[in-house]
Amino acid sequence: MAIQKTLTTAPKPKPTDESKLGFGKIYSDHMFKWNYSEGAWHDPRIEPFGPMLVSPAMSVLHYGQEIFEGMKAYRRKDGGVNLFRPFNNFERLNRSAERMCIPNFPVETAVEGIAELVKADKDWVPGTKGASLYLRPNIIATDEKLGVTTSQTYLFYIIGSPSGPYYANGLAPTSIYVEDEYVRAVRGGTGAAKTAGNYAGSILAGEKAHKAGYDQVLWLDGVEMRYIEEVGSSNIFFMIDDVLVTPKLNGSILSGITRDSTIQLAKDMGIKVEEKHILLEELIEAQEKGRLQESFATGTAAVISPVGKLGYRDKEYLINGGKMGEVASRMYDTLTGIQYGEIEDPHGWVYQVV
Amino acid sequence: MAIQKTLTTAPKPKPTDESKLGFGKIYSDHMFKWNYSEGAWHDPRIEPFGPMLVSPAMSVLHYGQEIFEGMKAYRRKDGGVNLFRPFNNFERLNRSAERMCIPNFPVETAVEGIAELVKADKDWVPGTKGASLYLRPNIIATDEKLGVTTSQTYLFYIIGSPSGPYYANGLAPTSIYVEDEYVRAVRGGTGAAKTAGNYAGSILAGEKAHKAGYDQVLWLDGVEMRYIEEVGSSNIFFMIDDVLVTPKLNGSILSGITRDSTIQLAKDMGIKVEEKHILLEELIEAQEKGRLQESFATGTAAVISPVGKLGYRDKEYLINGGKMGEVASRMYDTLTGIQYGEIEDPHGWVYQVV
Repeated sequence: MAIQKTLTTAPKPKPTDESKLGFGKIYSDHMFKWNYSEGAWHDPRIEPFGPMLVSPAMSVLHYGQEIFEGMKAYRRKDGGVNLFRPFNNFERLNRSAERMCIPNFPVETAVEGIAELVKADKDWVPGTKGASLYLRPNIIATDEKLGVTTSQTYLFYIIGSPSGPYYANGLAPTSIYVEDEYVRAVRGGTGAAKTAGNYAGSILAGEKAHKAGYDQVLWLDGVEMRYIEEVGSSNIFFMIDDVLVTPKLNGSILSGITRDSTIQLAKDMGIKVEEKHILLEELIEAQEKGRLQESFATGTAAVISPVGKLGYRDKEYLINGGKMGEVASRMYDTLTGIQYGEIEDPHGWVYQVV
Repeated sequence: MAIQKTLTTAPKPKPTDESKLGFGKIYSDHMFKWNYSEGAWHDPRIEPFGPMLVSPAMSVLHYGQEIFEGMKAYRRKDGGVNLFRPFNNFERLNRSAERMCIPNFPVETAVEGIAELVKADKDWVPGTKGASLYLRPNIIATDEKLGVTTSQTYLFYIIGSPSGPYYANGLAPTSIYVEDEYVRAVRGGTGAAKTAGNYAGSILAGEKAHKAGYDQVLWLDGVEMRYIEEVGSSNIFFMIDDVLVTPKLNGSILSGITRDSTIQLAKDMGIKVEEKHILLEELIEAQEKGRLQESFATGTAAVISPVGKLGYRDKEYLINGGKMGEVASRMYDTLTGIQYGEIEDPHGWVYQVV
């Protein structure tokens, strides 16, 4: 599908100090837009970034029929710009679409759209390693109606935000608190889809963890509240007895692209990986017996985020002495090395657009 | 708080045929708006209904931090206009706010705001019994940011939509299908809050029920998937052995104002009412033994909606011979009689604004 381009005539000033970008606070000059109506996606286009005129009865504002993705554009040393596994993100967006009754779209056009957006905003991609142009594809239900039924019209858009590390403290280990009252997701629910409601529902537990002095929530499964699912909005890994363990996808855990990349890279490094159901009590026992070697969370925004402390009820456990572990460190270097085009890309994950 | 008023200079034509209103499809001339920023609600006002200019990075469009209510303005025979239990709706909105980390608001100002909106749009309140001006209070997170944290700014707005009965067939009994794959809510989740994500997550099961030839979904609890919770976006009642039974509020069921009114009115009628955990298998056993006398759903939009058929896996059960039951019928007459100001209002539920 041909992508129409209307470039801005009033480019905004770019941030001068990349160390102060923060995450998702400022926006680049352009956005990608693509409409769905009368049964078809049409008019993919690049336009200047700007506010949208919406009806107060717009369906997504009431019933949350929405799905999104998180991606990044990475500045290469040679001045070029990489995307990372963009097809996988848009394939996942199409899977989220199925759960949320949003029409599927041709992945090729979405990849072309995000590539054209990055080309138009290539000067907005930061040059500092660890910083990137965060990209947010979003699909919203745009019918003007108050009935609780599938929208017949949608807007697919992508915006870009030059961003530093997701956590202000960079790679400093985070602390996580086991949430045993609030639930993020349950089988049969929407946990495996990247959709607004999962995040809205998580905010209260996040605030509770912050008040208790922790950075993030460790989520348990919604049925038994005994199995580990995710951390904050990231997937979670543990090194136990030299095996890298992560919760098995079960329908309520998001299938992370960084999770998948981490599993593959660990295997490349000769590390044994197990995807399995992990009981919280098993994890605590491993920690108490000194078998839990390290832990880290993975996600596009957070990349590889070491976990230094685990809180459960009135107990606190220091993981790896509260320091970043060796596997997390190697994983961060390897993954970001590939993403920024500094080392070989053995799996063909990099998609260079500039 | 004083409510500023800016009335439209270009009123829209009003619908001429009230039998063709449908539900939530057209909007009245004005809306109420109220902003939250810097820690306070400020500037409650009436403005012309119209589109809003929003950032594509507006928080609610990504993370669904949103809560809403459903209310109605009813035309009295004397030409006046009633609201029904508006304080209860706004108190519930404040409870939803707590679960979704949205700041509480003074209920008095919200009631004053909706009353001023109805006064401004009094000519939009239909005159036909069964029709009403449906009112939708909505609070959305308006921060322009991509971090998953509580918004610091919100917009509270109310729009009005002249509407006919929620179901096109009016009081014709509906059919409901037991959903045993998808889940609406789980304890610890957001089911008791009136928030976007609950509705987004329910659409797929609704489509599945429609494809199977049913009107609505009968939701089971998220943990055991054995207990009855809600029907579609309504509460559910059953007459079994001359007792009116409804699921007990458990943290994942919405505390309906119509549910509460129904319980009170049934007691007034001398009907025994039990709020309890209802096993699906108990219900089916009651039906098979001829003890299930009738069933109906309750909600502001749907009012009292008789259920004539229950589907579970490959079986179909006709309730009360597929006809509206006596209790549903009396309840509908009594409830709407009070709402439209036709009969005595023994509990002080009516709030006349015009």
